[in-house]
Amino acid sequence: MQRPGGRTARVRTAVLKAAEDALVELGFAGLDLGDVARRAEVGRTTVYRRWGSVGALLADLLTDMAEQSLPRTRTGSLAEDLRANARLVQGTLADPRQGALFRAVLVAATCDPAAAEALHRFYRARVEEWAPCVTEAVARGELPPDTDPFEVVRAVSAPLYYRMLTTPDPLDEPAADQAATAALTAARAGTFRRP
Amino acid sequence: MQRPGGRTARVRTAVLKAAEDALVELGFAGLDLGDVARRAEVGRTTVYRRWGSVGALLADLLTDMAEQSLPRTRTGSLAEDLRANARLVQGTLADPRQGALFRAVLVAATCDPAAAEALHRFYRARVEEWAPCVTEAVARGELPPDTDPFEVVRAVSAPLYYRMLTTPDPLDEPAADQAATAALTAARAGTFRRP
Repeated sequence: MQRPGGRTARVRTAVLKAAEDALVELGFAGLDLGDVARRAEVGRTTVYRRWGSVGALLADLLTDMAEQSLPRTRTGSLAEDLRANARLVQGTLADPRQGALFRAVLVAATCDPAAAEALHRFYRARVEEWAPCVTEAVARGELPPDTDPFEVVRAVSAPLYYRMLTTPDPLDEPAADQAATAALTAARAGTFRRP
Repeated sequence: MQRPGGRTARVRTAVLKAAEDALVELGFAGLDLGDVARRAEVGRTTVYRRWGSVGALLADLLTDMAEQSLPRTRTGSLAEDLRANARLVQGTLADPRQGALFRAVLVAATCDPAAAEALHRFYRARVEEWAPCVTEAVARGELPPDTDPFEVVRAVSAPLYYRMLTTPDPLDEPAADQAATAALTAARAGTFRRP
């Protein structure tokens, strides 16, 4: 057993921070275990023994990102919850460091199957965190009973990612609010009912 | 002046086909002008003189992809037009070769500013091609008069790209139809009105 905050935890924190720095600066193509060890001021052997591959390091980083992510809001109103979710995603992607990090892990997932699996787990965890906003709205009678909560939550993020990847347009709060409203409107009309 | 179908055009066709092959096989990180010249059976000097850089080659490939893309449908019904658009995007991304190509150019755009500009022009051209479906629906009184046609068209594609990038779920026709219905419902409710 490791004490929380013990040496093992400190090494992991330093290595994951260094991996983030490398991804932000160089992208996934530039991620290298030796370079991460140097940045983290940790022995190369430790890094190679503990993580073994770039894919495994990225998977651990995504696990940590999921654990560190903010909990969902609980405003009691689906419209407000979805807007808070959209603003959180928009703020994250618009932040220079966080945005570069997310672009780098999306790239990684298109190149590396282990990274893809870890990325899918990360998004699954985030969607699961926010899904109760929708289930509770269903229980309050605000949405059709067979609404798929995952699809509603995904519908909020999708336009923001698409805007980031395919347009030069700024990722601003009106874009976030429009994404939340579109998802809410479609959900109310029954678009996300399970088949 | 080059005759259409003359040597210059044949060289371009061969080089762009080779660039596509390389992107599908190796991704953007593996794109190399010398390798493309070899695959196209064209002299390296020709390729280096005419395209000069990987970013310029990718930009030319995206110009060609935009020119070769299918024209929009004209069914006279916005619901049918948006569904046709969703099915076209879904079929393209679900196709092993085309899907790999699109993932590679999305990756390229996160790494290379010239590629990003070319990618933005590509998506702009595609959105402009389909926007008249929306403008005509506005003229028919099916949508609020100040609806932004670009935002409606983008709303159809966004969930399909997001699903491809963040989930292991299949990109199937029900996903396409749900994307089209969600965009249509939100558009009818006035979500995509210009501020």
